[in-house]
Amino acid sequence: MHVIGTGIVGKTLSGKLATLGHQATLARTEPDLFGKPPVTVWRKDYPAVSLESFAEAVGGAELVINATLGIACLEALEATGAANLAGKILIDVSNSLDFSQGILPSLAVCNDDSLGEQVQRKFPQAKVVKTLNAVNAALMIEPNQLQGGRHTMFVAGNDAEARAEVSGYLKEWFSWQDVLDLGNITHARGMEILLPLWIRIYGATGNPMFAYRIVR
Amino acid sequence: MHVIGTGIVGKTLSGKLATLGHQATLARTEPDLFGKPPVTVWRKDYPAVSLESFAEAVGGAELVINATLGIACLEALEATGAANLAGKILIDVSNSLDFSQGILPSLAVCNDDSLGEQVQRKFPQAKVVKTLNAVNAALMIEPNQLQGGRHTMFVAGNDAEARAEVSGYLKEWFSWQDVLDLGNITHARGMEILLPLWIRIYGATGNPMFAYRIVR
Repeated sequence: MHVIGTGIVGKTLSGKLATLGHQATLARTEPDLFGKPPVTVWRKDYPAVSLESFAEAVGGAELVINATLGIACLEALEATGAANLAGKILIDVSNSLDFSQGILPSLAVCNDDSLGEQVQRKFPQAKVVKTLNAVNAALMIEPNQLQGGRHTMFVAGNDAEARAEVSGYLKEWFSWQDVLDLGNITHARGMEILLPLWIRIYGATGNPMFAYRIVR
Repeated sequence: MHVIGTGIVGKTLSGKLATLGHQATLARTEPDLFGKPPVTVWRKDYPAVSLESFAEAVGGAELVINATLGIACLEALEATGAANLAGKILIDVSNSLDFSQGILPSLAVCNDDSLGEQVQRKFPQAKVVKTLNAVNAALMIEPNQLQGGRHTMFVAGNDAEARAEVSGYLKEWFSWQDVLDLGNITHARGMEILLPLWIRIYGATGNPMFAYRIVR
């Protein structure tokens, strides 16, 4: 599989997948916006994660994970070439955070559209499944480290089989216990708007390690 | 106290408050949009809830609850007269649902503004506290009926004392166990955008009786 995005989310996901024995490639990018060490430094701890150029890596992967930063993901995905995504499951973890209006970001896309839908429209032959976008990267891959782990993770996408497959991966790879299938990709709207609440809860508690449990 | 809005939320809240021995007035309105029985029928079971005209009822109340339908609440509140709200806590339970685009509603206000902020701007002398907006009415007043009740309820508002007072009421009146104070009224944005997710979870599970637990 191939992870696009070498930020904290991309590194965390590909590192975990490599640990699980999967062949995980990670797209080569420039040093990040926040002055974090370049990905080549981090890679010393995860030699199983190979760094390749977008198109090359995606072409050889059976499953692609989009973990790029916000709205820029459309450009990043374009660099992979639509043909390299056709027929594949594209797990979309992106958020459309827009920091241009101040410290508390708003979303660049929301309410009547979502980044998940934009990705699906741009790559109609990919099977886009939105998931994992609204929790801390460390919790994405290990929800059980927090209070027994019975938190809820959502999936949304137009292809029912792809949603079922990704739901299985969430359980198998990361031990998510409660995966809730919302239905088609328009429901990515409901998942992406969790981000502004996530940021506010983080602001109020000072703690990014929290998850949502839908008690029902 | 006075509850504005005779829909299911207004009736549920005023009915519960009357049961607790509070003097709860309920603003007189026309029969509802969905052909539900007029409030006068429902009132037979709750004689302690008095029906009064907006301005009259609000003038005599120490605390006002806005449980009107969506964006129309601004007009409904205007009918009460700003002077009748000045200096009082105004608990805002409203949501800006806009059904004009189809079955799955979008929000008329979101992302860079919220209904809570609009209410606060329109009535600068009121102490607006946003809360309770994103759960089923039956759960608002009795969260403990579901799985032990350790669900999370948020509050947001510009007046810290008013937030603390309302947090106390949520615990005292309805037995909410985990009240999370998000801070000023701009954080109503994070609370109101839960509605589109609420609707999607309801759609996926067929069950409106669910709550959010922020596991941390």
